[in-house]
Amino acid sequence: MEAVAAREQIPQRTLCRDIASGHTVITKSKAHDCTPLGIGKNLHIKINANIGTSTMCANAHMELVKLEAAVKYGADTVMDLSTGGDIDAVRRLVIKKSPVPIGTVPIYQAITQHPEPDSLSEEDFIRAIENHVKDGVDFITVHCGIRKGHIHLLQNRIMGVVSRGGSFLVKWMLDHDRENPLYTHYDDICAIAKENDVVLSLGDGLRPGCLADATDKAQLAELRTLGELARRAYKNGVQVMIEGPGHVPLQQIEKNIKLQKKYCHGAPFYVLGPLVTDIAPGYDHIVGAIGGSLAAYYGADFLCYLTPKEHLGLPGLEHVIDGVVASKIAAHAADIARGREGARDADDRMSRARSNLDWDGMYARAMNPEKARELREKDLEGTRDVCSMCGDFCSAKINRETREHF
Amino acid sequence: MEAVAAREQIPQRTLCRDIASGHTVITKSKAHDCTPLGIGKNLHIKINANIGTSTMCANAHMELVKLEAAVKYGADTVMDLSTGGDIDAVRRLVIKKSPVPIGTVPIYQAITQHPEPDSLSEEDFIRAIENHVKDGVDFITVHCGIRKGHIHLLQNRIMGVVSRGGSFLVKWMLDHDRENPLYTHYDDICAIAKENDVVLSLGDGLRPGCLADATDKAQLAELRTLGELARRAYKNGVQVMIEGPGHVPLQQIEKNIKLQKKYCHGAPFYVLGPLVTDIAPGYDHIVGAIGGSLAAYYGADFLCYLTPKEHLGLPGLEHVIDGVVASKIAAHAADIARGREGARDADDRMSRARSNLDWDGMYARAMNPEKARELREKDLEGTRDVCSMCGDFCSAKINRETREHF
Repeated sequence: MEAVAAREQIPQRTLCRDIASGHTVITKSKAHDCTPLGIGKNLHIKINANIGTSTMCANAHMELVKLEAAVKYGADTVMDLSTGGDIDAVRRLVIKKSPVPIGTVPIYQAITQHPEPDSLSEEDFIRAIENHVKDGVDFITVHCGIRKGHIHLLQNRIMGVVSRGGSFLVKWMLDHDRENPLYTHYDDICAIAKENDVVLSLGDGLRPGCLADATDKAQLAELRTLGELARRAYKNGVQVMIEGPGHVPLQQIEKNIKLQKKYCHGAPFYVLGPLVTDIAPGYDHIVGAIGGSLAAYYGADFLCYLTPKEHLGLPGLEHVIDGVVASKIAAHAADIARGREGARDADDRMSRARSNLDWDGMYARAMNPEKARELREKDLEGTRDVCSMCGDFCSAKINRETREHF
Repeated sequence: MEAVAAREQIPQRTLCRDIASGHTVITKSKAHDCTPLGIGKNLHIKINANIGTSTMCANAHMELVKLEAAVKYGADTVMDLSTGGDIDAVRRLVIKKSPVPIGTVPIYQAITQHPEPDSLSEEDFIRAIENHVKDGVDFITVHCGIRKGHIHLLQNRIMGVVSRGGSFLVKWMLDHDRENPLYTHYDDICAIAKENDVVLSLGDGLRPGCLADATDKAQLAELRTLGELARRAYKNGVQVMIEGPGHVPLQQIEKNIKLQKKYCHGAPFYVLGPLVTDIAPGYDHIVGAIGGSLAAYYGADFLCYLTPKEHLGLPGLEHVIDGVVASKIAAHAADIARGREGARDADDRMSRARSNLDWDGMYARAMNPEKARELREKDLEGTRDVCSMCGDFCSAKINRETREHF
């Protein structure tokens, strides 16, 4: 707690109070040797990068390369969403190598290994959760809030259920004609999480998957259930975050954040996007950065990145980097907008370097120094103090000659 | 006017009223055979792409390739900001080839061809404007609002003057100890513009170039002057837009738009960004899309794109495309957020294609179909109905099996 308070430059007392009230969580499993991370009230906005194999691309080494890059460019946490190859081995490697907290979605593994809902028992879900917690993950997404009684609310949707866990659980409930086992076994899940101080990230299985479906009855019914489950987690001595959408038109973002904070008693809000349009596959890191910056400005605490490959395929290394930087831009812009002390210092240092045409200084302060250097220098022959946009017709150069008269 | 009203799906009467009040402009020079474009109240948000040579990269053919790409991906206008090579020839070619309105900054040419302010007379400025108007440009940026009396307001800035035209005019005023000739000759400029129905885009020579300088006295003093000049243009029977920042922290964007609309009597607002952080060179198209979407949501009418090479160099073809798409995302998200009728139709069509796993349908509806196709298909062997992210563990596939029960 001391380390987190120091890093966030807030009094320990404030941090303690926010943790006690459930407004802040600290992600760090007892079984994982990583830097503890605070997420929530009065803290910097955090970002998460998803990595992990799929059935069609299962290269463990590549996922470690992505992990390293994600951390280098500023991911505060990484989720291993592996669904292909030796899932246990990848997860253990990622946990071992990661300096930042690691999250997983344990039921992905249960589902991938039992693709037919018929063959998957309630115990299989719980066992998957136990295994991930035992291995040292710091937070887990559990879709406990999606209930059998919500299914009929989906009938007017264009996209139905876009959460992979959510869509499978709906199928499981329909096939078995039973309630969501992650809901009925919620207290057991809390007990498992508590053992290693694992944070529950209450998944939004019914999040909207397109603008048309945003803020509908299905989404809000699940959100209310997540609020009830948050209270039950507090009683069980377990920390929770709430996951949120998804695809949301820009003008509904503020309302979404306010509803989450209200229904869920101010628990930290972890959003995937939100995406403010559906028509830009290949650019969804940008679409998500627009929604994410606004969501964080209005009170979201934790942004899940999106990469240019969202809706199209598993991200490669360059997509992970672009996704992390886009998400970092959104988080940083919101930290500044929320008036966080010192948040603009980095910008001011950059601006001074820019004003002095100190290019090395600019690269050093850039979110992606390598990319900034490459984009500028490949146009230049020899050493120049300008860039290929303006050449000598450079406002910074002209300012040098006039500045004393300002 | 008829064509514009039809394209915007608004009554002609509304359009006439908005033009008469100065809240909307129609950009089309009498001397340019292009599609007339409305910018302003009750209309779709428009975007502009900058192209043009520099002293360090002066390849006219390349600029035509960029023009074509910018139009293909949705730029509503293109500005030719050439400062290198045969500037007249490039401009004339761009005007000839462009189906969309073309803007320029005539004083760039005057300055580039007279790099020493001493050698540049008031007549040289005016002559450059005359030449551009005669050639058929549809709108011109003229930095008429930056006055000698504003210069002392710059003293506390980190970045000084970042507008190229602005920085040169400050130097010219100091060197000659005279008022800005674009201000003193404003009525002459109006007369020149009127001749070909050219729209004046009143430049923001004192726009902030970093977050620290945003919304300061210098910026607002110039903005007030621009408001006075807008009124004078109306008296002269000339249409005007107002240019705006620049670098503005997210929480100040709404205020900036409101001030512009107030000081400038509701004239169309043309913003460059705004950029919500200074520290992401290489990703400024994303930074600008965040600010642009919010600015447009709050009332900006026209977004100037930024490319990944902003602050680093002259954009290449791929940067132009990424810049146009990022800006288009911002404009489209704002059209939806402002409740524009039918704005979400494209998204709903995409979502239906997604729900049906109709990949060709998704590509067809994507802002950049080629990129979407390439990102997905390079991971696939043979024809598959899924993507490399989820493989068969695909929520759309699972929904197919459960949808009838919703």
